[in-house]
Amino acid sequence: MKLKVKDLDISTGRNLIAILNDEDARKLDLHALDRIKIFYGKKIETVILNIAETSKAVKPGEIGLVEEVMKSLGAKNNSLVDIMIARKPLSLEHIKKKLDGKTLTKKEIDQIIWDIVHNKLSDIELTYFVAACYARTMNMQETINLTKSIAYQGDVLRMNKYPIVDKHCIGGIPGNRTSPILVPIIASAGYTIPKTSSRSITSPAGTADTVEVLCPVSFDINRMKKIVSKTNGCLVWGGALNLAPADDKIIHVEKPLGIDAESQLLASILAKKLTVSSTHVIIDIPIGKNTKIENKKDALELKNKFETVGKAIGMHIEVVITSGDEPIGYGIGPALEAKDILYVLMRHPKRPLDLEDKCIMMAGKVFEMLGEKNGKKKAREILDSGKAYQKFKEIIKAQGGNPNITPDKIQVGKFRYQFKSRKTGKIFMINNYAISKISRIAGSPLDKGAGILLCKHVKDSIKKGEAIFEIYAGSKEKLDYARDIANEMDVVGIKNVERAYLS
Amino acid sequence: MKLKVKDLDISTGRNLIAILNDEDARKLDLHALDRIKIFYGKKIETVILNIAETSKAVKPGEIGLVEEVMKSLGAKNNSLVDIMIARKPLSLEHIKKKLDGKTLTKKEIDQIIWDIVHNKLSDIELTYFVAACYARTMNMQETINLTKSIAYQGDVLRMNKYPIVDKHCIGGIPGNRTSPILVPIIASAGYTIPKTSSRSITSPAGTADTVEVLCPVSFDINRMKKIVSKTNGCLVWGGALNLAPADDKIIHVEKPLGIDAESQLLASILAKKLTVSSTHVIIDIPIGKNTKIENKKDALELKNKFETVGKAIGMHIEVVITSGDEPIGYGIGPALEAKDILYVLMRHPKRPLDLEDKCIMMAGKVFEMLGEKNGKKKAREILDSGKAYQKFKEIIKAQGGNPNITPDKIQVGKFRYQFKSRKTGKIFMINNYAISKISRIAGSPLDKGAGILLCKHVKDSIKKGEAIFEIYAGSKEKLDYARDIANEMDVVGIKNVERAYLS
Repeated sequence: MKLKVKDLDISTGRNLIAILNDEDARKLDLHALDRIKIFYGKKIETVILNIAETSKAVKPGEIGLVEEVMKSLGAKNNSLVDIMIARKPLSLEHIKKKLDGKTLTKKEIDQIIWDIVHNKLSDIELTYFVAACYARTMNMQETINLTKSIAYQGDVLRMNKYPIVDKHCIGGIPGNRTSPILVPIIASAGYTIPKTSSRSITSPAGTADTVEVLCPVSFDINRMKKIVSKTNGCLVWGGALNLAPADDKIIHVEKPLGIDAESQLLASILAKKLTVSSTHVIIDIPIGKNTKIENKKDALELKNKFETVGKAIGMHIEVVITSGDEPIGYGIGPALEAKDILYVLMRHPKRPLDLEDKCIMMAGKVFEMLGEKNGKKKAREILDSGKAYQKFKEIIKAQGGNPNITPDKIQVGKFRYQFKSRKTGKIFMINNYAISKISRIAGSPLDKGAGILLCKHVKDSIKKGEAIFEIYAGSKEKLDYARDIANEMDVVGIKNVERAYLS
Repeated sequence: MKLKVKDLDISTGRNLIAILNDEDARKLDLHALDRIKIFYGKKIETVILNIAETSKAVKPGEIGLVEEVMKSLGAKNNSLVDIMIARKPLSLEHIKKKLDGKTLTKKEIDQIIWDIVHNKLSDIELTYFVAACYARTMNMQETINLTKSIAYQGDVLRMNKYPIVDKHCIGGIPGNRTSPILVPIIASAGYTIPKTSSRSITSPAGTADTVEVLCPVSFDINRMKKIVSKTNGCLVWGGALNLAPADDKIIHVEKPLGIDAESQLLASILAKKLTVSSTHVIIDIPIGKNTKIENKKDALELKNKFETVGKAIGMHIEVVITSGDEPIGYGIGPALEAKDILYVLMRHPKRPLDLEDKCIMMAGKVFEMLGEKNGKKKAREILDSGKAYQKFKEIIKAQGGNPNITPDKIQVGKFRYQFKSRKTGKIFMINNYAISKISRIAGSPLDKGAGILLCKHVKDSIKKGEAIFEIYAGSKEKLDYARDIANEMDVVGIKNVERAYLS
């Protein structure tokens, strides 16, 4: 049966979908969510079928195709295509097996990930996989196989170097921008650190958003390799690379329920490290309210699992458990964070010491993992000597930015509001969630200059009328809206000092 | 922010979806799968957000709406609407709770089913619910609550009668068309039996498809009530009624993985019975190869569960375990099955005795459930007396059909092919799956006259060259295709009689 293509003019971003009219579907004994093969000239594409119940969108004799399928077939509006029913993907049997609580083999996991990478699974089917891994916990061997499968089905950066250092933070703390300081410290010591980072999804800035204030961050894998060959390091956006493509698709269906199966958390993080051939990885687990991991016990269990999987995939892993109780540094939002980074690297008096200390601690751990002694001392010396700053400038330049940029040249939002204390006392709490929310309302990360500048940290004393933080925005409207939200939320907790003594 | 409506001219059948351009979504800090409220005049609708990455389908400043949302808002192309972010449905927390292996309360189950009925959950979210019920088995109390929740969130037929009889078969056997014979037997004995049936999804015919050969089957609930008030019974299509609407939506996402959590199987069947206020229900579980339940042990366990849930919801349930080893009756496909039914009711010499015996056995069980003695005897007498046939004619007439139709007036496919035996021997196997497949390829259930007429059953002797079955189709092409498939498959097993004696 020949069908006339109707270009639906819609992109799904992922799923390969065709729509048949109900009448044709009945004739052909096809049902919603069946797979069909579409033949156009020499091209064949397997797609998931939807059924149009009215003939408004797709008339009898037509087949509606989304952009992804139009492109894959090279078909045009009104092209004539043939169709036939196709088998279900093999991996559906494996997904059902896992949902039944059985253990998956390496081959079965590879097949599932292949089908995910090649868009062969519908959202419903992919959700069953995620639900199965969540409800029927994967064992260590399955987690290891999943990690490798996610990593090696996509591009891999091979540097022909040893060791290759990497770093990851299990997110949630505003301003926790250690990578742009850590990378130049490690790289200037002669080690290779090809760092990929994400953009923000729900936070005021991801590392990629912040670094982008100073230089481009989107490169393909060959360009990334050149940058690293030249400077020992890089600070690029992982999303522009085809690294571990299954991971993003899995995360897409995890979001609605906010679940994150431990096997998938481990596999997701370590697969990304495998894709850049990392051998030595430091992982930062901040604990505190509103962070992913809320207490030390859970953090220690996770640390243990990271180390076990790491061992199995030939990766040295060092986990540090840090405080996630309040934002780190002063700036929140891409431009304000970029200023903090430059302050630290340039040894500026305005530099945030909490951020500096954390970077030195972590770089020190990395040096000690690599067999050096007094790692912290070495890290501090590199920073104090200006070598880290020099290396940072090299990387900025290699990525196409201006290496001579100074903090005062970084533009922040024109509109500013000072949030002042209504009493004198001591700060005992800064709410990470509120800080993120206000920054985002002010416009970050899309408006690079928008965000928050903290004037105080926890344990600092404050006087009535003194600024606790400042909001920056690119427009008056956004500033007003962010200010209103700030006034509604419990952003900062201040104890009356006398009362504090009593309590 | 005002957005201009773009009518996407697409119907999802279920999900309420809006599409924003990527640029606008970033500005508004909205993400794929977020919920937004759309305001148009006094109308408000909550929808799930998708993001268009190019501006081809939805340009910046536009919001693309599917038909379901256009209709609900009463919006037109280019209407201006406002949007704001909406909370996630409450039931997501409950679904996560079940996925974590915890027990759901009645209130939580009601909330989930409410959100399903009102299209508040995306396919991904609904899939998590189904996966949770499957991987984290629901206990009896949860299953009971689920059953009630599915039943009472939708229309309910209240007849003000007692008892109300009903019947269900846990499908899979071609030709097993007992309802159109059972309903008139029960109804002519003075009992109320408001039978709803399904259309075929993957079989050659559903009861509704077969009855439709003789009379209309699509009615609303008021019309159904009138038919039952008049005749004590009916044979209508459940799909035309708004009975247990959550059930179809759950089945939609079960299909891709072919899973059917036991709690959902029980709830799905018994909820449909609750919606017609049934008090006495007979359930037929055929066991055999390629049926839903393959062995007696599983059938007995399921029987036990049916009885437990039944008790809890105040329903008398009798489960009969029957043979599902081969098709029942001679005809497979709507018209051929309708002929069989008339043959039995009219006491015609050509009537299929296996179908007749099964109906008498089941009707007998029903009578005994209702406190009568010698149920089978009574059922046979009603059938022999012609009372059942008279009642059937009444029902056909009440549903708007011609009560005087005779089997020879029922049109079957013009094109016929006789499948002949290649040897002499005894039939030991007829493959249900192959019979279904060939009938569907021949055109059933859409072509009412298409299907298979069995000339022999298991244990019958056959001579070389004698017809085993005939295929009927509405076109030469379909007949040829069905014939080719029949020749490729193992449809019938014939033992050489001598060899049979030896084995």
